[in-house]
Amino acid sequence: MDVAEQVVEENDPNLETPFVAEMLKQLRSLDSYDTYDGWSKAKIIDPLVLTKERKQEIPVIGDPDEITLARVKAYYNAIASSIEKDCGLMAVSFINITHEGFGRALIMVGKLIVVDKTLRDIHRFGFANLDKMCDQSDKLISKAKTLIEQYSEAAND
Amino acid sequence: MDVAEQVVEENDPNLETPFVAEMLKQLRSLDSYDTYDGWSKAKIIDPLVLTKERKQEIPVIGDPDEITLARVKAYYNAIASSIEKDCGLMAVSFINITHEGFGRALIMVGKLIVVDKTLRDIHRFGFANLDKMCDQSDKLISKAKTLIEQYSEAAND
Repeated sequence: MDVAEQVVEENDPNLETPFVAEMLKQLRSLDSYDTYDGWSKAKIIDPLVLTKERKQEIPVIGDPDEITLARVKAYYNAIASSIEKDCGLMAVSFINITHEGFGRALIMVGKLIVVDKTLRDIHRFGFANLDKMCDQSDKLISKAKTLIEQYSEAAND
Repeated sequence: MDVAEQVVEENDPNLETPFVAEMLKQLRSLDSYDTYDGWSKAKIIDPLVLTKERKQEIPVIGDPDEITLARVKAYYNAIASSIEKDCGLMAVSFINITHEGFGRALIMVGKLIVVDKTLRDIHRFGFANLDKMCDQSDKLISKAKTLIEQYSEAAND
């Protein structure tokens, strides 16, 4: 459990965006011990926000722990799920992380790779604030949509 | 090291096929301890052959060990490398294996997924004989080539 003081405001308007809603759904689905029972949206999403201060507390080199890996998975699952909703085709995320916290995240639609991200410093996975999380996610989703339109036959295969 | 008696004949004609040559190259490249120094081609490839008798000696349920995982990687690297030689485009293999020996192997060319195999019982990875290995590999490679021709723009992206 994260003991740091919560930085996400309870009334942050980003909490009501479709992407954060999807992200919360994915985080809850990976919460096998029901840790989040009774938690507010802001409290659940809070550990994904890595302010400068929080970042400084994490060593530059480190192994990602289980909970960080679960957050990375939740994030790419949320991206995949958003793409799926947008284009009506199944999107599957596929993540490879080495013990040193490096790796690659793919999202596939049919035979098409619509997201391909090199992952670095996964033990410090997070976003400066919810605005940034929404912006970056929207970019990935919109780039994926463009690829699906461009290569629609491969995406539909 | 495998102590079982060698089943691949030293003069098996499959040892001279392009795929087995590629497979040997990949196996050697993952052999960081130089175990294979002075070994014949037949001896190096031998553990990939899982005869009925050898298969019976392996428990039905089991965790794949490091050396088996290395062989699976070598196999899909050899497939990727063969595709690359055939089509002149970079092919990258991407393998996800859970601790229980299930997983998925992907090979990507550009933005196209040209091989997508569900992996099961990885601790018993192997082929009945070299003929089967060559046949199955040729099928994967030729299917990949067809996809690359069909979706050449995505493959070239």
